Amino acid sequence: MSKNITTRAEDYSKWYNELVVKADLAENSGVRGCMVIKPYGYAIWEKLQGELDTRFKETGHSNAYFPLFVPKSLFEAEEKNAEGFAKECAIVTHYRLKNDPNNPGKLMVDPDAKLEEELIVRPTSEAIIWSTYKGWIQSYRDLPILINQWANVVRWEMRTRLFLRTAEFLWQEGHTAHATKEEALVEAKQMQDVYVDVVENIMGIPVIKGYKTETERFAGADETYTIEALMQDGKALQAGTSHFLGQNFAKAFDVKFTNKEGKQDYVWATSWGVSTRLMGALIMTHSDDNGLVLPPKLAPIQVVIVPIHRTEEQLQEIGNKADELIAAFKKKGISVKYDDRDTHKPGFKFAEWELKGVPVRITIGPKDLENGTFEVARRDTLTKEIVSAANAVDYIENLLNEIQEHLFTKALNFRETHITEVNSFDEFKEVLKTKGGFLLAHWDGTPETEERIKELTKATIRCIPMDQKAEEGVCVLTGKPSKGRVLFAKAY
Amino acid sequence: MSKNITTRAEDYSKWYNELVVKADLAENSGVRGCMVIKPYGYAIWEKLQGELDTRFKETGHSNAYFPLFVPKSLFEAEEKNAEGFAKECAIVTHYRLKNDPNNPGKLMVDPDAKLEEELIVRPTSEAIIWSTYKGWIQSYRDLPILINQWANVVRWEMRTRLFLRTAEFLWQEGHTAHATKEEALVEAKQMQDVYVDVVENIMGIPVIKGYKTETERFAGADETYTIEALMQDGKALQAGTSHFLGQNFAKAFDVKFTNKEGKQDYVWATSWGVSTRLMGALIMTHSDDNGLVLPPKLAPIQVVIVPIHRTEEQLQEIGNKADELIAAFKKKGISVKYDDRDTHKPGFKFAEWELKGVPVRITIGPKDLENGTFEVARRDTLTKEIVSAANAVDYIENLLNEIQEHLFTKALNFRETHITEVNSFDEFKEVLKTKGGFLLAHWDGTPETEERIKELTKATIRCIPMDQKAEEGVCVLTGKPSKGRVLFAKAY
Repeated sequence: MSKNITTRAEDYSKWYNELVVKADLAENSGVRGCMVIKPYGYAIWEKLQGELDTRFKETGHSNAYFPLFVPKSLFEAEEKNAEGFAKECAIVTHYRLKNDPNNPGKLMVDPDAKLEEELIVRPTSEAIIWSTYKGWIQSYRDLPILINQWANVVRWEMRTRLFLRTAEFLWQEGHTAHATKEEALVEAKQMQDVYVDVVENIMGIPVIKGYKTETERFAGADETYTIEALMQDGKALQAGTSHFLGQNFAKAFDVKFTNKEGKQDYVWATSWGVSTRLMGALIMTHSDDNGLVLPPKLAPIQVVIVPIHRTEEQLQEIGNKADELIAAFKKKGISVKYDDRDTHKPGFKFAEWELKGVPVRITIGPKDLENGTFEVARRDTLTKEIVSAANAVDYIENLLNEIQEHLFTKALNFRETHITEVNSFDEFKEVLKTKGGFLLAHWDGTPETEERIKELTKATIRCIPMDQKAEEGVCVLTGKPSKGRVLFAKAY
Repeated sequence: MSKNITTRAEDYSKWYNELVVKADLAENSGVRGCMVIKPYGYAIWEKLQGELDTRFKETGHSNAYFPLFVPKSLFEAEEKNAEGFAKECAIVTHYRLKNDPNNPGKLMVDPDAKLEEELIVRPTSEAIIWSTYKGWIQSYRDLPILINQWANVVRWEMRTRLFLRTAEFLWQEGHTAHATKEEALVEAKQMQDVYVDVVENIMGIPVIKGYKTETERFAGADETYTIEALMQDGKALQAGTSHFLGQNFAKAFDVKFTNKEGKQDYVWATSWGVSTRLMGALIMTHSDDNGLVLPPKLAPIQVVIVPIHRTEEQLQEIGNKADELIAAFKKKGISVKYDDRDTHKPGFKFAEWELKGVPVRITIGPKDLENGTFEVARRDTLTKEIVSAANAVDYIENLLNEIQEHLFTKALNFRETHITEVNSFDEFKEVLKTKGGFLLAHWDGTPETEERIKELTKATIRCIPMDQKAEEGVCVLTGKPSKGRVLFAKAY
């Protein structure tokens, strides 16, 4: 297996694209901007889904399913939301093809099958869901509604990249309805914390919790809570958002309820989502020039066993050892693959499993048979050790935990060394150019300044950190007063 | 809880529709022909998905994800398939909305944002998948490809019914590629057997295995294997199909491979799917005039505990007993709900859980506290027993198995008494009219006769049974010779 991937230093963006394709995670399809998620990539996504879904249910949510299509009249009901998504949406206008009389064997849209009302392929489901909730909510007794949906959504992005930005993507979207503002705020923050938990403890990606400026908020939200990660090229990636929607959708769809005092009020809402974009974050946070590096908790294959033999007898003996190992790993819930393909040499296999990011490789060769040992290689550090066969299983169980922690710590160290406090606009530009990463800077709080900084530097305010320190200062651009630093970065 | 559902005898179709809505399974949405699957209905679907997914993986398949959209040029490549779906498909023609100058606050399709090529929302994914497989397959070493996809699909049906026939539905679609015809045939039949396993042993629905006539085959298939179930109103329901696609899609998309002998050949294909339609089959097979009846293996709540008390002290004591039960049930993986709502009377709760089809209800009242007993009610038979608290958990574990088996046996008995061998067309029409169900009749093997019988009776050939007995006979309509009986019925 010749890897032949561009290195990160040569071209980070190219490295990413090649890695996604060569590690069999995903590829571009024949449909503009849409990707095919291949089995190996999908297996990682399924594991991530499982971790999220468990936590959604533990926090009282149920899954449900709402229509793919949003009639135009519902789509436009919440004006800011509509405005935010109108420019990039797929629109169904007809419901039938017919034979093209001018092109035998070809089909054409049947002009007689035009829809009375156009249907928008959902870019997000607030509109269709809140038009449904209207029928479900009369009294405070019907609240809260705590629903999540796993679905595909479509946003007609012009420049797309595998996982990071695709016209169709997979995600989950939570949509909750509450009797009080306080309860909705607690919910929105709770789900931000659920995302922190999964992204840090399962994906091994450290994040900064914060909330968005008005400019960067979700269209239709009163507040957007975000978690921001940092990639190895010094660019930020928004890893998940949770929105406090106020009463905006309740008002747009006239969803009122009778509260405990017997009075009518509009319902309070949240929505929150993460998507297959997280796959991009996963890849870019941990991987290296040899290929993918997967945290053990998401690796479809956690351990691969490669035999090295000269004789058939040796292979037989190695196979027996491998069977014992496999049985012991299965008991512990560790997923393992025995790669005894006779069509490829060990060196090829090593490179292939490295490229695919399998956390641990065990090699068993003739010497190991003699000495009662295995060779154990770590994907994250590319180091090897000789381990006694007798305690190999416990050793590897511990090693998987160690790798999981190490990946997080390594990413955290990188992040910590790439947050810089800057105090002038020159410094801002200089650090952004030479080092990248997160910049903590004072800002005067106006959308105009935010916009101007973006124009001049391409950096945006990723968030106002939840744990923002009170600190008197002056805006790096305008010199106007500021009460605390906000987090800037160039972002995916 | 007043149930107020129409009875089956009054109006079977109305009974079904009301049941789906009142049991909180699904409802119609604001989008023509599309449904909302509510949390309780979705929880059943999730359990069913889990059972299917486990078996797909056990038989060597992996999940993946392909685009929602099919460009028209790919859609029309396999002619029969295109012809089969062209008349009922949703077509995306534009990618942007803009403000409507004539209607302030309203949006309109932006005529400047017309797609160069129309996109069909997938009604099934053979076209998009085989255009992708082309890039994956060069040699026999790349085969087989064994992939499944969980997805939404859209077929623009004009007359829709919740779960049974909706414009958008959820399903899984397996798409496999093989080096030989024999291997593809084995795969197609294997997946038919997987469906039999899940539908009979998990859903409790007996099915007849068979294959479709040419007329009833999937558009683009050389053979369609089917499993056919019988509903309580005597109508058949196709519960799952598995298609042997021959080399049709390989030829349409030019997917060739080098075989072991070094020669080029087209790849052999299968596809197979079941959908949320199975939810309709589940409901119609087991439920009664009191509401839903769920097999324990798919019930989101298997046991509900309802307290009956006069004093707060009693409620406290009952709560303690319930806690013990819940802990014991959880250990055994039995899902249980303690319904201690103080807003509703026991009678209301009984009716509600009956309507929702919870297999077992435990009532704990003052007498039970005195006697160390519980009252246990079965949903399927509506019978009650007093059970000693000491062995209640084992008793209920067995009872759940018994209910699962009983539902299957009951449905099987119904099916067996509703298969009739008929030997003349008069008898055919008479039985169809008075009794319904499956008719085993001789047919001359021609599409013309099949069509004529359908016109005259609305009955179709559901399948040619896999275990068809060789039996000389004459066609019920034409009197021409026949070598065995085929299965007719009116169908959903």
